[in-house]
Amino acid sequence: MNVPFSPPQPAEAAEAIFRRYREDVLARGWNDTLAVLLDHRSVRSYLADPLPEGFLETIISASSSAPSSSNVQAWSVVAVTDPEKRARLSEIAGGQAHIRQAPVILVWIADLSRAEAVAGREGVTLEGLGYTETFLLAAIDAALAAQNALVAAESLGLGAVYIGALRNDPAAVAALLDLPPRAVAVFGLLLGHPDPSVPSAVKPRLPQQAVLHRETYRPEVQPAAIARHDAVTAAFRAEQKLPEQSWSSLVIERLRTVAALKGRDRLRGVLETLGFALK
Amino acid sequence: MNVPFSPPQPAEAAEAIFRRYREDVLARGWNDTLAVLLDHRSVRSYLADPLPEGFLETIISASSSAPSSSNVQAWSVVAVTDPEKRARLSEIAGGQAHIRQAPVILVWIADLSRAEAVAGREGVTLEGLGYTETFLLAAIDAALAAQNALVAAESLGLGAVYIGALRNDPAAVAALLDLPPRAVAVFGLLLGHPDPSVPSAVKPRLPQQAVLHRETYRPEVQPAAIARHDAVTAAFRAEQKLPEQSWSSLVIERLRTVAALKGRDRLRGVLETLGFALK
Repeated sequence: MNVPFSPPQPAEAAEAIFRRYREDVLARGWNDTLAVLLDHRSVRSYLADPLPEGFLETIISASSSAPSSSNVQAWSVVAVTDPEKRARLSEIAGGQAHIRQAPVILVWIADLSRAEAVAGREGVTLEGLGYTETFLLAAIDAALAAQNALVAAESLGLGAVYIGALRNDPAAVAALLDLPPRAVAVFGLLLGHPDPSVPSAVKPRLPQQAVLHRETYRPEVQPAAIARHDAVTAAFRAEQKLPEQSWSSLVIERLRTVAALKGRDRLRGVLETLGFALK
Repeated sequence: MNVPFSPPQPAEAAEAIFRRYREDVLARGWNDTLAVLLDHRSVRSYLADPLPEGFLETIISASSSAPSSSNVQAWSVVAVTDPEKRARLSEIAGGQAHIRQAPVILVWIADLSRAEAVAGREGVTLEGLGYTETFLLAAIDAALAAQNALVAAESLGLGAVYIGALRNDPAAVAALLDLPPRAVAVFGLLLGHPDPSVPSAVKPRLPQQAVLHRETYRPEVQPAAIARHDAVTAAFRAEQKLPEQSWSSLVIERLRTVAALKGRDRLRGVLETLGFALK
C-alpha cells in the first residue's frame, strides 16, 4: 500500500490548533472529527430541555465502541434525570448549580461487580479483583468509554462537562444509585443543550512541547513552556473576566493542602469500603 | 432556543450500531464523527511506513483538547519510534510482536512531576501529591487525552491499539524513557498504517442494557444480557477462527489468579517506588 503524503492543511485547521494552544503548531491532517475534538469546551450553563429522543442510546453506543482492557468491559454508566437525585448529586459535588440545571448527568462507574457475578455463577472466586491494578483497569475502561460519550455528544451539538467532584463522597453516590459492591463512581458527565446566552470558550492548554516528548522524557523543556502557558492563561482569564491568576498558581492552589482535596484524601479508605482492596 | 426533534436515522447508523452490539438499539442522531467512533477496531498488524508528516502533531492537539480535571493537565506522552526502544517495550509487554512492527508507540504518562516542579520553583510543597485521589486524577487525565488521540488517529485512517501490558513493569518503562519521579506509564498506544492483508473486525460488546442503567443501578438485568453476549462472543470468535470461548470464561480467565495479572499484582508497590504514595 502506498502511504499518501499529508494533504494540504485548510485554514480552519491551523485556526483550531492556534485557538487551543495560542501558538502555531506545524501540523497536517484535517477532517470533521478533528474539528469536533479540537473545538471542545466545558459547558456549565444549560437549558432545561431534555436530550432529543434516541441521542443517549447513540452516545452510549459510542461508549461501547471504546477499547476495553482485555475486553473485560469493567464499566457501567447510570443516567440520572430525576430532579431530586440530581439535586443530591449537586450537593455531593459541593453545590455545583449546573448539575441541577442540565437535564441529565451520566455517572461513570468503575465496575468489577459484573465480573464478580459472572464468576460467582460458576462458583469461581476472582483473586485478581483485590488489586490496585484491577481497580485502575476499571477506572481507565470507564474513562475511555466516557470520553467517547463526550465526543459523541459534542458531535451532536450538545454541551458537556465532567464532574470530578463526585469523588468528594463516592460512598454517598453509591448509596444514592444503589451501586452493588465492587462498583464506584469515578466521575460524572453532564449533557444538555448549552444556554446560548452564556457562551463558553476553548480553554488554552500547555504548549505541545510540554506534553509531547520524543523517545525520552525531557524535563528541561518544561520551564519555558510553562512560562508561556502562565502568560496565555492570564490573558484568557482576563478575557473571561475571571480573577487574575496564572496556571502555575492554579495548580499549586489545587494541590497545596489536604483541605483542597475536599474529602478526596479519604478516597483510598472509601474504595476499600466499596469493595476495592487496592493491594 | 427550540430543540429540534431528532432527524431520521440513516441506514448506515442502524448498521453501525448493530455491528457493535449484534442487536438492534432504538437510537437517533448520526454524523461522520459517530461513524468514526462506532467503527473502532483494534489493529494488531501494521505496515512499517511512518506516520505522514504532521499527523502526530494534529493527533496530540486533539489530546490537548480533552478535558482535564481542574485544568491541572496531569499527563504527558512519549512518542517512541526508535526500533531498539520499541523492541524493549515489546519485551516488557510480554513479547507482543505488533509493538516492534508499528512505526510509533505513544506511551501515556500519569504525570504529577510537572505540578511538583511548578510548586518547587515557588518553594511550595504540594501535600495533595501523595494521595490515591491525585494519582487517579492523573491516570484519568492521561486516559481522556489518549482516547482523543485514538479517535483522531482513526479519523485520519490510521490503525491503533492500546497496550495495557506496559503495566506489567512500569519501573522498566520509566527507566527506558528517563521518566522523572512522580511520572508513570499507564498504557501505550500503537499507531500506524494497518496491514491491508490482515483485516481487523469490529468486536461485539455487552448489550446496552448491561452497561446503561437509568436512575439507579439494576443488577437484575445482567444475567440475560451476559448470556446473549456469551453467545454473540462465541459466534464472533468462530468467524475470526479464534479458539472457542464465551465472554464469561474470558473474564474469569483474566481475573481468576494472581499469576494472570502478569506482574501487575505488584503495581501498588511499583507506584510507591515511582513517587505515588497512594495514601
